[in-house]
Amino acid sequence: MPKVVIVGATTWGITLAAVLARKDGDLRILTRTEEEASLTRDSVFRTPRLPDGFILPPGITVTADTSLAMKDADAVIMAVPSQAMRLNTRQVAPYIGKRTLIISAGKGLEIETGKRMSEVISDETRKEHHANICVLSGPNLAWEILAGRPAVTVIAAEKETRARRGVRLVTVPNFCAFTNTDVVGVELGGALKNIIALGAGIVDGLGYGDNTKAALLTRGLTEITALATALGANPLTLAGLAGQGDLIATCSSKLSRNHQVGERLTRGESLKDIQAKMNGIAEGVSTTLVAWNLAQKLGIEMPITDRLYRVLYQGEDVRVAVKELMVVTASHELAGRKWGLFSLFRRRKTPETRL
Amino acid sequence: MPKVVIVGATTWGITLAAVLARKDGDLRILTRTEEEASLTRDSVFRTPRLPDGFILPPGITVTADTSLAMKDADAVIMAVPSQAMRLNTRQVAPYIGKRTLIISAGKGLEIETGKRMSEVISDETRKEHHANICVLSGPNLAWEILAGRPAVTVIAAEKETRARRGVRLVTVPNFCAFTNTDVVGVELGGALKNIIALGAGIVDGLGYGDNTKAALLTRGLTEITALATALGANPLTLAGLAGQGDLIATCSSKLSRNHQVGERLTRGESLKDIQAKMNGIAEGVSTTLVAWNLAQKLGIEMPITDRLYRVLYQGEDVRVAVKELMVVTASHELAGRKWGLFSLFRRRKTPETRL
Repeated sequence: MPKVVIVGATTWGITLAAVLARKDGDLRILTRTEEEASLTRDSVFRTPRLPDGFILPPGITVTADTSLAMKDADAVIMAVPSQAMRLNTRQVAPYIGKRTLIISAGKGLEIETGKRMSEVISDETRKEHHANICVLSGPNLAWEILAGRPAVTVIAAEKETRARRGVRLVTVPNFCAFTNTDVVGVELGGALKNIIALGAGIVDGLGYGDNTKAALLTRGLTEITALATALGANPLTLAGLAGQGDLIATCSSKLSRNHQVGERLTRGESLKDIQAKMNGIAEGVSTTLVAWNLAQKLGIEMPITDRLYRVLYQGEDVRVAVKELMVVTASHELAGRKWGLFSLFRRRKTPETRL
Repeated sequence: MPKVVIVGATTWGITLAAVLARKDGDLRILTRTEEEASLTRDSVFRTPRLPDGFILPPGITVTADTSLAMKDADAVIMAVPSQAMRLNTRQVAPYIGKRTLIISAGKGLEIETGKRMSEVISDETRKEHHANICVLSGPNLAWEILAGRPAVTVIAAEKETRARRGVRLVTVPNFCAFTNTDVVGVELGGALKNIIALGAGIVDGLGYGDNTKAALLTRGLTEITALATALGANPLTLAGLAGQGDLIATCSSKLSRNHQVGERLTRGESLKDIQAKMNGIAEGVSTTLVAWNLAQKLGIEMPITDRLYRVLYQGEDVRVAVKELMVVTASHELAGRKWGLFSLFRRRKTPETRL
């Protein structure tokens, strides 16, 4: 019976616990405090799409005691917000064994360093454990997984054997994991797609439709693939489940926090207000900042990311930004090359070009 | 003032007329009969998403008189069902001038020959006109375009100059066309995505969610890209607006006829009954047949298309097919490699592989 620790009583942490509880095993959730542990044990977890709510199955140890949670762990799944990954890893690191698989379930980049989660985990663990670091990422809306609907995910590790161990640990009926050895691509797919999800929220907030959103996703995937590839990813990974798949799922769901941020920006709410009122963290907000800085440094054209950066961090009005990117003005004129409109589609990166 | 003829009072034909009516020009719609012409002129075009309906703007000539419609035409846009493309082209061919642009707006393949629409048009027109053949395809749900929401499309021709002429003709505020010289890719993107849309209807009909659908779209795009590439397309076209973009838009909309066919199959309706009751033609049904034959001939693995073919043409129960492709059984067991489930994700075509 494998002993698996989930670090973080986040929505995603609880969801993974629910998944793993479908098979035999010794499952533990590590919380920040005993109060949180007790809340996690007893709460009914609710989402608008899961009317009956979800209660953690019995038999799971929920504790704030790190040494208790980590005892003889076969795997530790880090399901904490990206900006908390470093401290949480530091906390569990002393208890990591030689064979303990360390699985990052975070989808974000560290703001200060621009690092991926597996890099952060590397920084905070001993070198002999580095080969055991895996990342888990894919089209995984939490409430659907809690509801038992079929979903797939990807587990990546530099060594295929470790990815396989991860897959064996997490695959259960209706939640099926694939391996990949492109850690960079899988992590960047999961992180960067949140930028585009902010844009999808804006498109929906402005009452545009599926045509506009499909165009945004297509061009969005192109620019995040360009950045990811420059950072060492295999572009095919971005075209797969952990890239395109995750992008489509996230942008389809109006429940995603990133989507909500985008939508509320169109209603004139400030980022500060939105974040203050929001339950949980919209990873796309910090990912936009990190990606923008990387794009500047590497000279990658990311028109969508660039506009979102201005909206989020430079106070640009969302409607101005959208106009620049997408809105067609009535004065639109081909002869004069006055394309304020659709300038995001102007780049010659794909076979599709425009005049 | 360009003279543009739209052949076919189909939903898409009417939508394109509405788009082109946004700018100056001499616009004509060619119908099959005078009765249809009169109906087209006077009808309120309704969709569930456009509550006030749509009435054709004044100033458009609607006629069943081919010579009248085609007089001095700068462009003729073929907006007819794929299986009717040959006869309709034959009908207008004698009136096509040396400079008349011939734009296919159809998204399908001819059943008998497996040909793309531009090939069918080539067959039926004089050689000197072939360079003027263009195709128009992209993420273009009709009702959203009628509602004036921003959308982009692609116009492809073998010669960039012709594609540019097409773009100049159709681009209006909120409907912006791009050029591409990969005619094969643009046409196959538009046609083959309808197969996956049938699958999306099945996923929705079975009450699965966005995770499942995102996985289906991702793997679906992989297999249609494989077929398209074998047929001469540039894979990057399939990753662009006319491939991925169109796939995402079509699979997002429950109003698409292909989606409806998929959904109704899950309710146990027969294909015959569905098609008899359906207003308009679900192109994906015939496209599945053509693609399946091509895949056999060329030795391309298309697991999703294969299962849909069995459902549509061999009477396989949709639940059996879905089980084979997607459903996870409780007896699921890793050790025994008993993966009835998710076998569509089993292929080693992308960096993501599974055990």
